[in-house]
Amino acid sequence: MSEVKITLPDGSEKNYDSGVTVEEIAYSIGSGLGRDAIAGVVDGKKVDVYYEIEADAELSIITIDSEEALEVIRHTASHVMAQAVKRLYDNVQVAIGPDIEDGFYYDFDLEESFNQDSLEKIEAEMQKIIDEDLEVRRKELPREEAIDLMEARNETYKIELINELDGEMISLYFQGDFVDLCRGPHLPSTGYVKAFKLLNTAGAYWRGDENNAMLQRIYGTAFASQKELDNYLERREEAKKRDHNKLGRELDLFMTVDEIGQGLPLLKPKGAKVVQILQRFVEDEEEKRGYQITKTPFMAKSDLYEISGHWEHYKDGMFILGDEEKDESLMALRPMTCPFQFQIFNSKLRSYRDLPIRYSETSSLFRNEASGEMHGLIRLRQFTISEGHLIVTPDQLEEEFRGVIDLINYMMESIGIEDDIWYRFSKWDPEKKDKYIDNPEAWQDSQAKMKSILDNLDLDYEEADGEAAFYGPKLDIQFKNVHGKEDTIITVQIDFALPERFDMTYIDENNEKQHPIIIHRTSIGCYERTLAMLIEKYAGAFPTWLAPVQTKIIPVSDDQLDYAYQIKEELEAEEIRVEVDARTEKVAYKIREAQVEQVPYMLIVGSREEESGSVSVRERREGDLGTSPLAEFKARILAEIENKVINKEDAI
Amino acid sequence: MSEVKITLPDGSEKNYDSGVTVEEIAYSIGSGLGRDAIAGVVDGKKVDVYYEIEADAELSIITIDSEEALEVIRHTASHVMAQAVKRLYDNVQVAIGPDIEDGFYYDFDLEESFNQDSLEKIEAEMQKIIDEDLEVRRKELPREEAIDLMEARNETYKIELINELDGEMISLYFQGDFVDLCRGPHLPSTGYVKAFKLLNTAGAYWRGDENNAMLQRIYGTAFASQKELDNYLERREEAKKRDHNKLGRELDLFMTVDEIGQGLPLLKPKGAKVVQILQRFVEDEEEKRGYQITKTPFMAKSDLYEISGHWEHYKDGMFILGDEEKDESLMALRPMTCPFQFQIFNSKLRSYRDLPIRYSETSSLFRNEASGEMHGLIRLRQFTISEGHLIVTPDQLEEEFRGVIDLINYMMESIGIEDDIWYRFSKWDPEKKDKYIDNPEAWQDSQAKMKSILDNLDLDYEEADGEAAFYGPKLDIQFKNVHGKEDTIITVQIDFALPERFDMTYIDENNEKQHPIIIHRTSIGCYERTLAMLIEKYAGAFPTWLAPVQTKIIPVSDDQLDYAYQIKEELEAEEIRVEVDARTEKVAYKIREAQVEQVPYMLIVGSREEESGSVSVRERREGDLGTSPLAEFKARILAEIENKVINKEDAI
Repeated sequence: MSEVKITLPDGSEKNYDSGVTVEEIAYSIGSGLGRDAIAGVVDGKKVDVYYEIEADAELSIITIDSEEALEVIRHTASHVMAQAVKRLYDNVQVAIGPDIEDGFYYDFDLEESFNQDSLEKIEAEMQKIIDEDLEVRRKELPREEAIDLMEARNETYKIELINELDGEMISLYFQGDFVDLCRGPHLPSTGYVKAFKLLNTAGAYWRGDENNAMLQRIYGTAFASQKELDNYLERREEAKKRDHNKLGRELDLFMTVDEIGQGLPLLKPKGAKVVQILQRFVEDEEEKRGYQITKTPFMAKSDLYEISGHWEHYKDGMFILGDEEKDESLMALRPMTCPFQFQIFNSKLRSYRDLPIRYSETSSLFRNEASGEMHGLIRLRQFTISEGHLIVTPDQLEEEFRGVIDLINYMMESIGIEDDIWYRFSKWDPEKKDKYIDNPEAWQDSQAKMKSILDNLDLDYEEADGEAAFYGPKLDIQFKNVHGKEDTIITVQIDFALPERFDMTYIDENNEKQHPIIIHRTSIGCYERTLAMLIEKYAGAFPTWLAPVQTKIIPVSDDQLDYAYQIKEELEAEEIRVEVDARTEKVAYKIREAQVEQVPYMLIVGSREEESGSVSVRERREGDLGTSPLAEFKARILAEIENKVINKEDAI
Repeated sequence: MSEVKITLPDGSEKNYDSGVTVEEIAYSIGSGLGRDAIAGVVDGKKVDVYYEIEADAELSIITIDSEEALEVIRHTASHVMAQAVKRLYDNVQVAIGPDIEDGFYYDFDLEESFNQDSLEKIEAEMQKIIDEDLEVRRKELPREEAIDLMEARNETYKIELINELDGEMISLYFQGDFVDLCRGPHLPSTGYVKAFKLLNTAGAYWRGDENNAMLQRIYGTAFASQKELDNYLERREEAKKRDHNKLGRELDLFMTVDEIGQGLPLLKPKGAKVVQILQRFVEDEEEKRGYQITKTPFMAKSDLYEISGHWEHYKDGMFILGDEEKDESLMALRPMTCPFQFQIFNSKLRSYRDLPIRYSETSSLFRNEASGEMHGLIRLRQFTISEGHLIVTPDQLEEEFRGVIDLINYMMESIGIEDDIWYRFSKWDPEKKDKYIDNPEAWQDSQAKMKSILDNLDLDYEEADGEAAFYGPKLDIQFKNVHGKEDTIITVQIDFALPERFDMTYIDENNEKQHPIIIHRTSIGCYERTLAMLIEKYAGAFPTWLAPVQTKIIPVSDDQLDYAYQIKEELEAEEIRVEVDARTEKVAYKIREAQVEQVPYMLIVGSREEESGSVSVRERREGDLGTSPLAEFKARILAEIENKVINKEDAI
């Protein structure tokens, strides 16, 4: 029998008989490793522990508690779930069942509808299968045999899938009475699934195509240990509670209306107030930093978008107005502000002495999102953004870029999410030229310049291909929300292309015409999304400077109403947002309601407070702060507002 | 010969022979009146002085210096102009030539293009015709004869017009070698045209239809005296100088761009700044008065507009999104904010204790105006308005209406146009039921209620039929601009109809569901139009509180640059808008430029000012105010801003 040389991750080498399995090697190193091994990576390819190695190879062993194990655990759990469903329901057919971020799912074709009871029944059956500890074994069969096998089991979806696979041999996984079409790898046996939970059901079209049959999808998750599962479920519960869609409605911040449509939320007075505060804060801060505001229209003739390239690269994402056959020229709602601000630049002859010019606008933008894409305040058909463009000479580029990053960081600190963000350098994808302005040299050049600026700024960033704008590379500010979903909340772009397209020029020191460089940027991103982030981050307990109501005055009885309104007036003179709860309810009840509304401060005023000109202060988290003169409270809250104090305990 | 009894406006009666002319009666009263008489009104019908009265009648005589004479003078002047053109150009055909507000025009079909020289030539020829003092005589001819006459003169447009007239007899006016189809009346002779001026030419389609021939229109005006004409021309020159379209571009406030389209102006930084100031002022004042802000989407599905009735009554004025054949439901950009704010009201159960609710929003609206309709910042496809709705019980209606009027008056005072506005009570037109929600009783009822409120408020108003909104009567605030054109700048509506359509209810004192009443209102109107009004009223010299730049610091030399920036910082700390003119230009030149920009204050700082910590203050109108400590200037300008001082001398 021949030997094979196995190289382990630490570089050590060892010889085994050819055909040795990953499991055997693991046991040969130690019995603990043997027991924990659930898969291996042979020459970069993930394989089962039963995989037989027949040539010299590099091997690393995946253990049950490693991060790489998670997807194997979840994939096997999805097979266990399918097996349980097949055992429980006679006429079910299985479709596909992958592992996904945070868990797994499987799609079933079954007349009967799954409900919470079904999930519990399925979980019980899964536990049985796990207790049976069935070996999970890969087997390759010739195509025809695989089809015969699936026909015998009446799995028409699987047959459709097999017919689309290349190659003559089809890989299948067997565990007890269950067989599935699968590439693997899988856990050695069902007993390795130590902690799982089914979460919910949803409808899903076969292959995501609405012309196909509607299947039932069951979502679940699995972890290496019960403790990890419990942690996850707890986080998930918390995220659900903080979900901006849920909390935003409960706190009366926004709503949607069927007759108006999806992706078009209405901000109610409290939500609109938060956005107004943010908007003015951004506008004023930008003005301090030398930005000039503009106010440009939300639509334009297609002529404008033809110059910018949006008509060619972005038309499907735009709302078109007018009728191609009837109208001389179509119009479209704008998906961004750039070409409008460029026109303002172009309205005058500019000298290098006029640069940099920094334009900003509280701008409404429109995106024709598909119905399924829209979500709460995050993916919208219309949104408001602090959009701006810096028009600079090459000499100014780095300093201005630094200024932009500095402004963004200041904004992120002001709303308390500076620790939740990271940078991503987004580049084009040379494989998908149709998505971009096609000029490979210009791309290489501008990406190199941007990289050098990022490196000079000492920014810690990751790189991503295929995430650039169609006209240039971007620096994206990434954020992970309470549901664990990563999202780009801010982008900064360096643009060497559009100045040429829009014939933007300035006269340089040598009296010659030059194209400027443009930095496209936002400072805080979309206001609607910012509102969503704030709701989720603080579970509705906005930092005091952003709270729609900052102080609620609660008179103990009607006798203190005058005093309450007098305090209100005094606080409002300092632009503090105050409400008096004048209802004839019990004090405790009013406090409870103010707590639910997450009002930062409650001032309880009875006859004692009135006589001494004081207030009894209650903070939403700290509770009773005792009685203090009104002036003292005023100083406290004003300092908190002025300094934009963030109570990190309010946040996640 | 029989006699006729003539009753004069003072009630006096006198008998004349039948067939007596207006002229003869005028002379019989006095020779002065005889000479000044240019037409008469016989039983309510305007006639020439040559008109023969053959039955008892009421008569008033129109004299050359009366207001009613103006249109007759202008109409005859238009004939004189046509006669002059016929004399000067061989192949010309005349089309139509009416008197209009402020003057008259006549349309000509001529190959050669009119220019300034032609106008002067025509004016000279008109003067000749006036000097010839040709009698202007009406004559009625049978249709065929009238056609023959026009055919002989090759006036094909006139023949087309005659063919469309009813009746067998056609009335024509003859003066010397000129004849025109006309109803009259006209001046007794061309010599009565004492003062006229041709103004400009323009293209005009025959009958305003772009499928017809393009004619050349000459505009002119005429008055009873040279002095009145001179006054008018002076006002016109001044208005031209103040025209917001011209001045707005010169002062760098806004621009339009062909590729973006008509009716979609771009506000440049200075224009955007004025609007931002106004907008925040309005939002804050409304908040003080108990309004709650909302932020609602700019588009909705047609479903919403079907409920509101806009789909039925206003669809042509809206921008539609989507394709009737492809899309399940169309969307439209909103022409107003009402149905959106109503949804917010409807999102909760409301009690009478919650009312009144006052919603306001800085709202963008969209109107699909025809190409020819759009004008500067006045008639737009997209505009921004301070829109709001008060939702009230019947008991609260009058007080809330009063509050709205009070707010509007405060706004008008703050921008200094309180003396330029008046009120119009706009009612429906029962003859045009299709334009309105068809419920005559409801209209009578709501109009009566509104009238009683207006009377109780002691408002001085005029009434207008057919100017209501389709769902209810309005109080319009009317404004006359520098060009003398009247415009509605603000409307307030009382609405008993939409609450029912939107199923808006509250629970009253007796625990029963009731529909509230809605007051639709704006407080300052459209911001873009307000900007236009301000530009024209102040010829660009905005009141200090609204000026985009309030103070320009002009250092005498570069040595004072540091001091200049130090002052800037100090003033900016008080939120005063300051610029430093740091260019190496002469002080006089910089002052001149700041004057042109209409900056309220210039601070000239030389070494003397720096040493003493003072500034040399110059006001844009008063000129040099001498040197004063910076603190003193700061106090002066801050008081001016705080009190929203309007210098009436800046205004028209």
